[in-house]
Amino acid sequence: MTLSDVDALVFDVFGTVVDWHSGVVRDGESLGKSKGLDVDWAAFADAWREEYQPSLTRVRQGEIPWQNLDSLHRQSLEHLLDRFGVEALTDEEIEHLNSVWHRLDPWPDVIPGLNRLRSDYLIAPLSNGHVRLLTNMAKRAGIPWDLILSAELSGHYKPDEEVYLTAVDLLDLHPEGVMMVAAHETDLDASRESGLRTAYVHRPLEWGPEQAEVVERPDESTYDIVAEDFVDLAERLGAGPVV
Amino acid sequence: MTLSDVDALVFDVFGTVVDWHSGVVRDGESLGKSKGLDVDWAAFADAWREEYQPSLTRVRQGEIPWQNLDSLHRQSLEHLLDRFGVEALTDEEIEHLNSVWHRLDPWPDVIPGLNRLRSDYLIAPLSNGHVRLLTNMAKRAGIPWDLILSAELSGHYKPDEEVYLTAVDLLDLHPEGVMMVAAHETDLDASRESGLRTAYVHRPLEWGPEQAEVVERPDESTYDIVAEDFVDLAERLGAGPVV
Repeated sequence: MTLSDVDALVFDVFGTVVDWHSGVVRDGESLGKSKGLDVDWAAFADAWREEYQPSLTRVRQGEIPWQNLDSLHRQSLEHLLDRFGVEALTDEEIEHLNSVWHRLDPWPDVIPGLNRLRSDYLIAPLSNGHVRLLTNMAKRAGIPWDLILSAELSGHYKPDEEVYLTAVDLLDLHPEGVMMVAAHETDLDASRESGLRTAYVHRPLEWGPEQAEVVERPDESTYDIVAEDFVDLAERLGAGPVV
Repeated sequence: MTLSDVDALVFDVFGTVVDWHSGVVRDGESLGKSKGLDVDWAAFADAWREEYQPSLTRVRQGEIPWQNLDSLHRQSLEHLLDRFGVEALTDEEIEHLNSVWHRLDPWPDVIPGLNRLRSDYLIAPLSNGHVRLLTNMAKRAGIPWDLILSAELSGHYKPDEEVYLTAVDLLDLHPEGVMMVAAHETDLDASRESGLRTAYVHRPLEWGPEQAEVVERPDESTYDIVAEDFVDLAERLGAGPVV
């Protein structure tokens, strides 16, 4: 196995780069306090995220036309507000809560790791989040991407191969020149099928501290790299100065 | 006229953001010296750039299939090497010269101006250069784009309206929420036709110092803003802290 042909790293975002669980809980609690709501926001966050794959599947299978993640998140959110008995939110408040996915914070190792990686590789997100969402997120959190790539640029959602191959094409590389970095095996398995290199990063806290023990590491031989976090990934790739 | 609805600024690149004339002369002279070539590199640069519009037109009119700027530049370059009597370059040397368009430097006002503009607006290139070229250029020169937009994302070349409307769509804005910034009236006229706001920036040195007096400013009323440079543009938009 040689990784010397890799020129670009592309990253899954929700869960891999940013901590969506804490971010949704943070904004939910802030809204709950100001409106006097009694909601278990950790459960709310998980329930919202659980709607994610089924909503993507409806687009991927052609049941509903292509629409961006704001739109899919908004539809899920309206069901959830109902289910959790949250009433009395204005449309503006619902819209603000819906845009919390633009305001998520990176895990602590992300910025130091990316700063090392970007000295040797082109780095970009490759998320099901749309271009505008990823741009807003990066600008707010100071994530130093070289460019914004997204499933939106292919009109498909991961794990459809069009997403990976469109990214490879825009990077003007061959698939083996691009490494997909993700905390999710489905994403990495589909990347490998499309000819990309793969790096797994372990994110045991993705679904919150209570569920940390449920997240298992894959076998070391499954992917080109199995790393603990982004700094460990930089270390294994020998990228950038140690800071 | 109100510009308060503008959320994003998109920029023409060759001539508007970067000084292609000096960049091509610089790399040409360096190659010429190492290979003992006797070439007027200023004339060579201008001749190369003059091939640009005709090559885009062949794509825009469907005479040749879509291909990126590296490919179009390379075809022009081979004609020019022949015309200027340059022989004895290896394929690697020709390829390196061809990629000079990835290694152009910004005009001196660009980085200070963009640093002010980006505190109030999303900023992105919107060039006929492809995504990878613009990414390489930004990384090398430290241009602080929030994202990379390109004609490539629409499969068309400016001034086709698809280029502007695809950018507007990816920014998740309405056309009037986007301002095109360019030193070229053709680009701005097409942007305005597509409903975008427009800012002209004066670049009298684009074709080198000898031709500075040929570049005329448009009438103030032609575009939303007619600016001297990027710092002046930031000033007129009241953007960012004065630095």
